[in-house]
Formats: sequence, C-alpha cells, structure tokens
Amino acid sequence: MTDLLWPGDHRAGDVFSDAAYLAAMARTENAWLRVLVEAGIAPSSARADLNSVVSASDVETVAAAAEAIGNPVPGLLELLRQRTGGETAHWLHRGLTSQDVIDNALTLCLRDALDRVHGELRKQVSRLAALADTHRDSPMLARTLTQPALPTTAGMKIAHWLHGVLDALDGVATLPQLPVQAGGAVGTMAAATELIGSPTDAVALTRRLAEELGLADSPPWHTTRSIITRAGDALVTCCDAWAHIANDVATGSRPEIGELAEGRGGGSSTMPHKNNPVLSLLIRRTALTAPALAATLHTATAASVDERSDGGWHAEWAALRTLSRHAVCAAAQTTELLAGLVIDTDRAAANLAAAGDLLGEQRTMAALTGHPVRPDYVGAASHLIDAVLLRAQHHLREAT
Amino acid sequence: MTDLLWPGDHRAGDVFSDAAYLAAMARTENAWLRVLVEAGIAPSSARADLNSVVSASDVETVAAAAEAIGNPVPGLLELLRQRTGGETAHWLHRGLTSQDVIDNALTLCLRDALDRVHGELRKQVSRLAALADTHRDSPMLARTLTQPALPTTAGMKIAHWLHGVLDALDGVATLPQLPVQAGGAVGTMAAATELIGSPTDAVALTRRLAEELGLADSPPWHTTRSIITRAGDALVTCCDAWAHIANDVATGSRPEIGELAEGRGGGSSTMPHKNNPVLSLLIRRTALTAPALAATLHTATAASVDERSDGGWHAEWAALRTLSRHAVCAAAQTTELLAGLVIDTDRAAANLAAAGDLLGEQRTMAALTGHPVRPDYVGAASHLIDAVLLRAQHHLREAT
Amino acid sequence: MTDLLWPGDHRAGDVFSDAAYLAAMARTENAWLRVLVEAGIAPSSARADLNSVVSASDVETVAAAAEAIGNPVPGLLELLRQRTGGETAHWLHRGLTSQDVIDNALTLCLRDALDRVHGELRKQVSRLAALADTHRDSPMLARTLTQPALPTTAGMKIAHWLHGVLDALDGVATLPQLPVQAGGAVGTMAAATELIGSPTDAVALTRRLAEELGLADSPPWHTTRSIITRAGDALVTCCDAWAHIANDVATGSRPEIGELAEGRGGGSSTMPHKNNPVLSLLIRRTALTAPALAATLHTATAASVDERSDGGWHAEWAALRTLSRHAVCAAAQTTELLAGLVIDTDRAAANLAAAGDLLGEQRTMAALTGHPVRPDYVGAASHLIDAVLLRAQHHLREAT
Amino acid sequence: MTDLLWPGDHRAGDVFSDAAYLAAMARTENAWLRVLVEAGIAPSSARADLNSVVSASDVETVAAAAEAIGNPVPGLLELLRQRTGGETAHWLHRGLTSQDVIDNALTLCLRDALDRVHGELRKQVSRLAALADTHRDSPMLARTLTQPALPTTAGMKIAHWLHGVLDALDGVATLPQLPVQAGGAVGTMAAATELIGSPTDAVALTRRLAEELGLADSPPWHTTRSIITRAGDALVTCCDAWAHIANDVATGSRPEIGELAEGRGGGSSTMPHKNNPVLSLLIRRTALTAPALAATLHTATAASVDERSDGGWHAEWAALRTLSRHAVCAAAQTTELLAGLVIDTDRAAANLAAAGDLLGEQRTMAALTGHPVRPDYVGAASHLIDAVLLRAQHHLREAT
Repeated sequence: MTDLLWPGDHRAGDVFSDAAYLAAMARTENAWLRVLVEAGIAPSSARADLNSVVSASDVETVAAAAEAIGNPVPGLLELLRQRTGGETAHWLHRGLTSQDVIDNALTLCLRDALDRVHGELRKQVSRLAALADTHRDSPMLARTLTQPALPTTAGMKIAHWLHGVLDALDGVATLPQLPVQAGGAVGTMAAATELIGSPTDAVALTRRLAEELGLADSPPWHTTRSIITRAGDALVTCCDAWAHIANDVATGSRPEIGELAEGRGGGSSTMPHKNNPVLSLLIRRTALTAPALAATLHTATAASVDERSDGGWHAEWAALRTLSRHAVCAAAQTTELLAGLVIDTDRAAANLAAAGDLLGEQRTMAALTGHPVRPDYVGAASHLIDAVLLRAQHHLREAT
Repeated sequence: MTDLLWPGDHRAGDVFSDAAYLAAMARTENAWLRVLVEAGIAPSSARADLNSVVSASDVETVAAAAEAIGNPVPGLLELLRQRTGGETAHWLHRGLTSQDVIDNALTLCLRDALDRVHGELRKQVSRLAALADTHRDSPMLARTLTQPALPTTAGMKIAHWLHGVLDALDGVATLPQLPVQAGGAVGTMAAATELIGSPTDAVALTRRLAEELGLADSPPWHTTRSIITRAGDALVTCCDAWAHIANDVATGSRPEIGELAEGRGGGSSTMPHKNNPVLSLLIRRTALTAPALAATLHTATAASVDERSDGGWHAEWAALRTLSRHAVCAAAQTTELLAGLVIDTDRAAANLAAAGDLLGEQRTMAALTGHPVRPDYVGAASHLIDAVLLRAQHHLREAT
Repeated sequence: MTDLLWPGDHRAGDVFSDAAYLAAMARTENAWLRVLVEAGIAPSSARADLNSVVSASDVETVAAAAEAIGNPVPGLLELLRQRTGGETAHWLHRGLTSQDVIDNALTLCLRDALDRVHGELRKQVSRLAALADTHRDSPMLARTLTQPALPTTAGMKIAHWLHGVLDALDGVATLPQLPVQAGGAVGTMAAATELIGSPTDAVALTRRLAEELGLADSPPWHTTRSIITRAGDALVTCCDAWAHIANDVATGSRPEIGELAEGRGGGSSTMPHKNNPVLSLLIRRTALTAPALAATLHTATAASVDERSDGGWHAEWAALRTLSRHAVCAAAQTTELLAGLVIDTDRAAANLAAAGDLLGEQRTMAALTGHPVRPDYVGAASHLIDAVLLRAQHHLREAT
Repeated sequence: MTDLLWPGDHRAGDVFSDAAYLAAMARTENAWLRVLVEAGIAPSSARADLNSVVSASDVETVAAAAEAIGNPVPGLLELLRQRTGGETAHWLHRGLTSQDVIDNALTLCLRDALDRVHGELRKQVSRLAALADTHRDSPMLARTLTQPALPTTAGMKIAHWLHGVLDALDGVATLPQLPVQAGGAVGTMAAATELIGSPTDAVALTRRLAEELGLADSPPWHTTRSIITRAGDALVTCCDAWAHIANDVATGSRPEIGELAEGRGGGSSTMPHKNNPVLSLLIRRTALTAPALAATLHTATAASVDERSDGGWHAEWAALRTLSRHAVCAAAQTTELLAGLVIDTDRAAANLAAAGDLLGEQRTMAALTGHPVRPDYVGAASHLIDAVLLRAQHHLREAT
C-alpha cells in the first residue's frame, strides 16, 4: 500500500491496508468457522485455515466485486468457497451476515492502529517528561497572541505539550476493548439461534468468537456505531496534541526566532541553506485534515436507520481507515520529532532578553503587595511542571 | 436569547446564553476576589458581590467593546470597576488574565449544558427501557438497506436505540469534572505567586478558586484544550444517538409504513390532513450540523501555539456555545418524542406479514441442522434486549 | 443582536439578524399580497403595509412559536392576521407555503450580506493594488516551509494576497442573481394556479414577486439548494483569502520578524508593552470556522428528499446566517487591517540581509548559462505584479 | 489502484491514481525540459521522452522517499536523473521548484477527473430530460416532511432532480481552465529569469509550458489556492445533486412505497427476496463524506502563509485526490442508476389515491375565487418542467 500524496504513509506499513483488511475479514470467517466446529454445529471436516487461503494478491478481485452488493464480503466468500470446497465451503459464514464480517475486520484493523498509536504516545510521554525536567529552569520567552508576554521556562512549555499528550493518551487508554459483531442478518442472531437451537447457546457463540478474535463480547451494534466515533475522536485528539507541538516547533524554528529545531531537517535540492521542519509540517498537515475525518464518522453514524443503514454505514469505512493510518504516521513522526528536538537555550535566553521590559505586571504586583519584586517572574512554573510529571509517571508505571 | 432560525432554541432557555456567559464571567471575578480576600492578599474592604453588578442589559456594551483586544473581559472589567470603585475596583482580577476568565466562564456554562443533557439522557434511558420491555415480543419487520429483511420485534429495535443512548450517557457521565483555569498571563501563575509570595501558596489559590466555582483543581490548560474537545465529542455523540431514533421515527411515520408516530405531530396550516414528525426532523437537523461544530473545536485546538493561541482559542467559543445549546434543545426534544411515541403494533405486524416470504435463510438453516424450523425467527432478541436493559438499570441505579 | 462570544460581531449590525430576518419574512408576505391585489385575485381592500406591522420586539414571540410546526412562518402569520384583520388577514399568504417565505427571507438577508462583502472586497482590491505598486521593489525575504528561501519584494507578497482577494471577488461577483421562491405547498404552484386560473398566469405571479423583491425569476427550488451552497462556497473562499493575509501579518508582526504590523494593535491591560495583531487573529478565527459552516450547507442540501426535506432544509438556515454574519465581520476587519497596515521596509531589508547567503540557486543558474549573476534575484516579480494589477484595474473599472 | 473499503472505486480506474499522479509529474518535467530546449536554454542533446522513463512500478520507491523533504518530487528527480544521465539529467527541472511539479500534476489529474464528471453529467441531463418529458403527466404523490402533501407528477419530481444536476453541470462547466504553475522557488520566476536572461522571456516560458500541458497561462499561485477549492466546491455540488436523486430512489424503493426501483438491485446472498438499491446507497455514502473533503481543501488553503505553506499545502493533495475519485465513481453510478431507473406509475397512482383527501387546500382556493375546482391540482407542473427542459436543451446544444 502506498499513498504517493501522503508523504510518510509508509510508516503505517500494513496497518489497515487493503491487504490487512482482507486478511482481517478472512480471520473473522476463520474464527467463526472454528466456533461452529467447536460447538458441534459444523462437522470437524469443515475445519480449515482460512487465513492462508487469501492474500494481498486477491485484493483487486475482491474490491472489484464489492460494488454489486455494496460490500466486499461476497467477493471474499466466493474466493474462500472456490479454494476450499467440501464441508468448509458448505459451512463457512453460516450464521453471519456481511456486516458482521465487515465490522469485525474494521475493529481488528482499528485495534492495530490504536496499539501503534498507544505505543508511540508512551514513548512521547517518556521523552517529554525527560525534556520538561531537564529544561525546567531554562529561561524562555512566553508569547501570547504572537507577542512577547512574560518570562517562562522551556520546561514549562514542554510540560504544556506533555499535558496535551497525556490527555490524548487518556483517550486512547480508556477506550473500551473493541466489541465483537455477530448479530446475523438483522442483529437478532436469528440464524445462529436456529443453528444451535437456543438463544442462550447462540449468545455463547458470540462470546466464543470474541475470545477467538480478542474482542469484547457484545450484543450486536449494527446501527449503534458509537465505538467507531469514540475511537475516531480519540485519534483526532492525538492529532490535536501533536499539532500543538508541531506548531510551536515550526514557529520556533523560524531563524528569526531560532529556539527550536528538528534534529533532521529536510533539505532543499535547490536551496542547500534550508533546514525545513519537515516533520512538523507533516504533523500539522495531519491535524488540519483529521477533524473532518472524525466528523465524517459522526455524520455517518447519525445517518443510522433501520437494522442496517442505507449509506451511513458505508460512509464510515474509508474515513476510519484513512484517519487510522494518518494517526499512526503522525504518531511515529511526532516521536521522531521529539527524539531529535534541538532546544537552543542560549538563543531562547537571548530572545527573552531582547524582548525588552516585560516586568510591567510584575512591578504592579509588587506595588500591590509592598514586597520587593522576585528575582524571576516564572511563578509556580516548577511546581506546575512537577504536577504534570507526576501524572506522566503515573501513566508510565500503570501501563508496565 | 432567541434564535429565530433554530426552532426549539427556547428550550435551552438561558443555558450558555450571552447573559449567562456574562454572569459566569462575573461569577469568576467574584470568586477570585473572594479568594484574594480570604488569603489576606486583598483587604476585607475589597469584598463585594460582583454577581449583582452586571446583568443581561450590559451584554451589548461588553460585546461591542470585545473587539478592541479580542475578548470581552476588558469590557466587563471596566463596568465592574466603574460600578464598584474603591478597594474592590483596585483588587478585582489581580493575578488573573483574560483567558482565565473566558475559560472559567466557558466551563461554567458548559457544565450547565452538560447537566441538562445528562438529565434528559437519564429520562430517555428510563423511557426506552420501559418501551423495550413492553414491546419485546411485538413483531416488526427488520429492514436492511431500506428493504425488508427478516422478522424482529419492536422491543429489539428500541433496545438498539437504547444501546446508543447508553453509550451517549457513558460519554457524558465519564467526562472528568471540568477544570478550573487560573494560570495568569502565560500559564505560570506568575502574578498570583508574586501576590502571595510563594508558588505553593499560589497553587493553593487555584484550588480555592476551583472550590468556589465547583470546578476541578487543575494546572493551567491555556493551550491544551482537550477538555473542550472531549466535551464537544460527548455532545455530538448524544446527537448521533438521538438522530438514530429520529431517523427511524421519520421513516416509520411515513403513512405507507405507519408503524411509528409522534404523539404530537406538527400540523400544516394549509394541509390539515398532515401530521408531520416535527420533533424528529428538528432532531435530525441537529445531528446534520453537530459534527461540523465538534470538528471546529478540534480544528481550533489543533491551532494551539505559544502560550495563548492566535485565533485558535477565539475560534472555539461560539462553536462550543452553539453545540451546547443545540444539544440541550435536541435532548429535550428527544425526551418529548419518546414520551409521546406511538407504536402501531397492528400495523407493524401487518407490514411484516405483507413483506412476503422472508424465511429463505431460516429454511436454509433448518436444512443445515436437520431440525424443524422454529416458530418465529427472531433469534436471541429477548436475550439481547435483557442485556441492554441490565445495562440501563445499572446506569439508573448508579446515578441515584 | 449581539454575540458576546464573537468579538467584532457588531460590525455585521443588523445584517441577517433575527430582526432583519423577521422583517424579510414580512417583506415577502407584503410583496406577495401586493402581487395578488395587482393581479386582481385579492381585492384592493386587502392592501396593507405589512412591513410596518411587525418589529424586532416580535422576534421572541415568533421564535417561540416556531417549534410547533418546525418553522417561524405560522407564528408570523398569526401576528400579521391579528394585527391587520379584514381582507388583509383573509388574503395574505394565499398561494404561498411556509418554505416560500423562509427561502425568500433567506435570500433577501443573504443578499445584504453579499452586498456588504462585495463592497469590502472592492475596497481591499483598491488598497492592495496601491500597496503592491508602492512596494514593488521593496526587498523582502521570501520564506518557504517557514525557512528563508530567496529574495522577493514586499509588492510581490502583496500581489499574491491581491490574487487571492480577486479570486474571492470573482466568486462573489459572478454569483447569479438570487432566485425567488414561490412554488406553493409542493413546488407545483398548485394554489397559485387555482387562484388565478391558468398555469401561465401563475408563473407570471412568480415573476412579479421576483420584481417586487429584486430577486431573479426562477422555477421553485425547494429541494435543489445549489444557490445556497454556491453562496456559502463564495463566502468561505473570501475567508480563505483574508486568512492568507492575516496569517502573514500575524507572523510578520512577531517582534523577532517585525516586518508587518497592524496600525491599531490591541493592547493588553496587564502587559502594556504588547501590541497584539487583534484583527489578524480575529480574521484567522473566522477562517478556522468557516469551512465547517459551508460544509454544513452541503450536508444539508445533500439530505434533500421528497418535495420538502425532513431536516436537511432546517439544518441550513442557522449555518447560512452564521456564515454570512461572520463573513461580513471579517470583510470589514480585513479592510481595516489593510488600511492601517504598517510595512517596515527597513526591517524587511535587514531580515533579508541577515538571512545570509541565499544565492546558491542563483550561482547554479549562472553557471548553467555562463552569464554573470544578475544584481538581484527577484526574477519577474515586477512583471507578475503588473499582471495582477491589470486584473485588479479591470475589476474596479468594470463595477463602476 | 484499489480501495477495498470504497466499493465502486474501480470505476475511477486510473484517474488520479498514484500511477497517474506519478505520470503527471513526469509529464510536467518532460514538458518543461522541452520548453527549455526549444527556448535555447538547454541543448538539443538534453531532449528525452521522460514520460517513458518512469512507470507504475516506481510508485512505491518515490512514495517512500517523499517524507524526507515532504513531497515526492526529489524521489522522482533521482529516478529520472539516474535513468537518463547526460545533458538530460543535467538540465531537467532547472528553473522549477517542487511545488511547480506537484501543482501541475495535481491540476492534470484533476482535469481528468473533471472531464469524466462532466461527461457523466451530460449523459444524466439527457436521460433526465427524457424521463421528465415522458412522465410529465404521470400522477405521483408529493411528500413534504415525510408526509403526503398534494398531487404532483413523476415528471415534476424528475425535473427537480434535473434542476439540481444542471446547477452541478454549471459549476463544472464554468470552471476556468486550470492554471499552469511555474513560479520557481518562491513564485518570482527567479531561476527561469536567470536562465533566459529577461523577465519577459521568463514569463513566455510559462506560457509555453501551459501550452504543452493544455493548462491556462497564469502567474504563480503557490499560496493562492482558490482554483483548488473552487474545483472541490464544484465536485461536492455534483455529489449533492446526485444524493437528492439517490435519497428519493432509496425512499421510493422501500416496498411499502414501491414507486421507484433500481434496474439492477444488489441481491443478498442469504436473503434472495431482497432487491437492494445499492447504487443509491453508494451515492448517498459519497454525499455524506464529500462535504468534509471539500471543507478540508478550504481549511488547507486558509492556512496559507509565507511563499510556501507549512502544512496547508500538504494537507490538500490527498483530500483533492480522494474527492476527485469519489466524484468520478458517483458520477458513473448515477448515470447507471438513471439508465436503469424503473418508475412504477401504477403504484405511484395507487399511493396517491391511497393518501386520501388531499384537497383541503384546493377547496379553500376554489372557495376564495368562486370558481369550480380544477380537475387535478398539479398547478403549473407542466410549464415548470418545460422551463427546466429548455435549460437542459440549451446546455446539451451548447456543448456539442
């Protein structure tokens, strides 16, 4: 999978690629077939390793067949049946509906993306915590509305970034385990109940499928898609937090400011003097586009009607895929950006000094209290950094 | 506050209205002044009830003055100082920055909106649980991709609605307590530290302000706005869930289908035979527009830069207000819709019968198992309804 | 009308305010009544000046009544009938439907907004053309991806702004005249035809209404809303062009760069040294939020169904109003920003000099050609400026 | 290129695929090299057919190399230089910047997409005009807010669809010819001027490049992206118009209504009785997602800053590609939907009859005028159909 128009896309590798999605559909069919055999519904002779039956080279065939009924499951089933035959072909997919397969494959791919993002967020927390601590007293100019305001420290600025990244991590870490989908044609488990003979046993089949796939047991959610929007919201929240860092780095790496730089700048072929903050601008790009993708998931969900939606469901798939891959790329780019981040403390101190007299407020305060002015004017910065570091440590410890 | 172009807006009453927002700003200044006096920073003579100093009639003056510096705080301060004078005028706002006042007023107004939505969601859960139970066995046609699919029950359909509303309730109920904002000019609490003499004591002032306002103690979050986006995401998730209900009611109340009707239909002045599903379409309207508003909050947040953003922050306020008011209105409309919802079970049964032979899948399943076909084909519907009802009971009990 | 949370909103004055919208609805009813009388359908005794019958003080009553049927027309009609009585009450609105009134009022208010925006765009073109000409040779550093790239001139940069503003002006100026709406209950003009006796004469009534209101004659467009989305797209295109300017001014007014400044900076109450680029950040705010509003208009339109939409139509009104008012405010703010814009040519030249050796590309080119390097390296800047100025003159002349 | 998660994507074939984009970049380099040779800047020995030097199999290599500098041009140049060598390698790309190549490739791919959409729109106009004429008198129930309202005709409903499609066609047909991009590093044509010796001659090189590529001559538009947003707005307007049709077909093909059907319905593997309106729901899907993509183009444009944007530019590419491909697919799907559309006029008449007494308004009108009621109540439907047909004929004739 390549996206020539999304530089950095290769970082997402096969996460939620077409090939990965096809494999996740096959994995769902495989797990369900195993459940049917174990439950004594399908005969042992139906056993097969469906995962190995299809591969990336089948993507185009399955994709081209998807329009006839509006989803890629029938195309997959045809391949699986052709290539297995016998009892396997006879029993696979029995009791499921296309939506079950589509939705489990979505959550399996989404889970991979979330895991990747989660791992990067933890690396970022580590790195940011170290940076905030190291630079807790490095003087830096605080700017508001683009203008010099008061002194702060580099560590305080970094602690604000960390605050955002911790919030983003909260969003990802507190997502419930993604739910299995096995409602059958209309979400009543009618076919499964018919096959196994009792509703209680049908419900148990779903639980077994969930175990096989590592998903949470769940009643059908064909037209209640809040888990999808919640995951989307968590991902865009990550992009927001990364953009805050990228915005500050892009601004701080303007040579007139010169306080921050990417370790590896993207050079220009025709202008060798340039050291472009490429990671920052690619992260910014992601954040400029992610809110619309997450909003699309809400719009799609809000179009839910009947027992399977007439377009809302279909609108969701590609948006979820694109948002997931973009978030994975931006996660890795942010980790790399932070790993190589250069903070020019001399320049920062010089900029603070050059900003001139910033002490108007301080003098007013001192006059109000009658005390002499304090030597710096960074207030509780160090205490506030500690508060964020404490939260970071809590997060890092918890997840070990 | 009226919005002639948003029928139903009056249901939100004064929640997050301009007047309410002005009052919330005054309440923040009042609480901070009280904190300053209690801490011995300001003299007792500075005490005043700032809440009573401004009123709705001041909104226009404060609004008109807001452009000069880009926010309405200076205009408010001018009024407060003019109308109090003396030590009060001298001490109020000392240690705060405009952003502190804006942000606390945002969260105070947002809290009111969330409380209203939360209350409506709980009523909806109650009503939906009762409806799902009552109609657990009422036959109804399940439709997928607009076409008749298989039998289900009215209770099962309602349980799916309830599933979505419970997810929405989860989102609202698990929001962290909204955080106080008191970072001073650049988020370091510099002025507060100067006033009280030590960072530790400055941090304690924030804690006291949080107590006064009923907000959570928090380090400054001037440019880490995830609490705002998270609240926005929770609100749009509610709108999604309500839209699912409204879509089904709008469809089901087409006379050709006739299974569902609003208790109170909006009549037409020129076509008295009409019984329009007005609440449904107003709820649908909300859900068509809410994702873009929540996305705007993310776009705004992702523009965070420096210690106060150059536009991103300002982009957030009106979008949060509008989304909040719209959600409050739609919440109340949905509660009313559900309270009056008419389910025509005879018509539902007749539509099911008229759909013709839906038993192809059932016969296939029976042939696979060798068992006779079961009398209905609604599978585990009753069990699945129970699973959702259990969750509803848990929610309702918990919150008592 | 105030919007405390949208500093600068007062610049839009009564454009598309609730009061203006109410007046536009009354104006539509008034024009139609006049048409009915002139056509001999209603008696002369039905004549009345409906415009003077309602006023801003009625907004709240009409708004509160709007929910019952989902739009504010019935509430207005009730007031009009109560306050006129007799033949007027008997004949007004005959042949129209609520949607006709809502839509004509939307286009009348939209037209006011477009006129205001158009006027500001023309002022901006004038000012930008003058600035580009004046500064055509003022050396300035061109920056790409935040980094110093090559020399350019201030006039060239301004010509790029002008290019965008001219494109925005094209979008507004080439909007077709907004269409009248008079389709009656389902867009067939059934009632009007019944009243006047022939389809041809009914169609002529629409033409007369269009003349009365200064709108274009048009077949009904109840569910074909492309004129609304087209206007929305034109407005957001303006916001994009203004944001380009605001982004450059916000960046250029960072003291470390110092090449640009707003004539009137917004001072800070506690930090008197600050000169915030307030207009720039308010314009940026508008552009951060406008695309979502324009997208909402498309989402609403794409939900068109039947002969009147079940929510899509209702979703459009407030979004169109908000986008229109915001565009009017940003238009005026941009004009003011440009009028007072300060370009520090000395600082610009110094920054260019300080950027160090930018001539790598130039030396490569010279080596390729064997010619000596040219004295500057601003290429065809002056020619390109002239091309844009020519287009500006064409526009300004055309509209006189 | 496949998109397994966007059923129907194969209809777009190679339009704006990664391979097509790579070819368009090569085509730009090839055209520029030819221009350099013809102008006597590069020697004749530099001539080469660069189009044949790269192919789809290079996409992955070029994509993977794109992150280093943030765009795929350097990766392409490396391949081109490796595979040509000599004077070709020495001279290619001289005078251009990466953005020139990216932007010309964008517009070349966009043009293909627009051409495809344009062609489909014309077919749709033809088909809709025929359908509207054929069914101008076929009775059908008009519905407003989901409820039966008054009689109309099938031809009138179709004429409303046609109205929307004609507006969409206007948007595409009136797009200006897409502009060439050849500004060099900072949009001043500095390198080109240096190479050829005079600004006038440099400007002429751009004109020659435009001719080679079939694009419009234009000054550089590196940070004034209104042509991109305008094209995006035109495409989303098409999707809106198609969704209107798809919404009506999806609703009308509910068996309880049964007035409309897709010629080819998508069958269900497990429910053979089903005849799903698959094209309609895939078109609806497109329209649910297109507004967010077009909004992303505006958001990206509004982030323009400096002489090349720090993320805004990069945010645009993939969104434009996705919107373009989706529009091409939906265009073809709509044409097919209309070609096979089945209108059940008997059922439509029966539904109208079953709606009961719809003549309340008609009787009121007749009472007002004292005339007997007219035999039908479809007003000026036939005249209004003619008005739209006239416009359609004008369009079809014009473009021949």
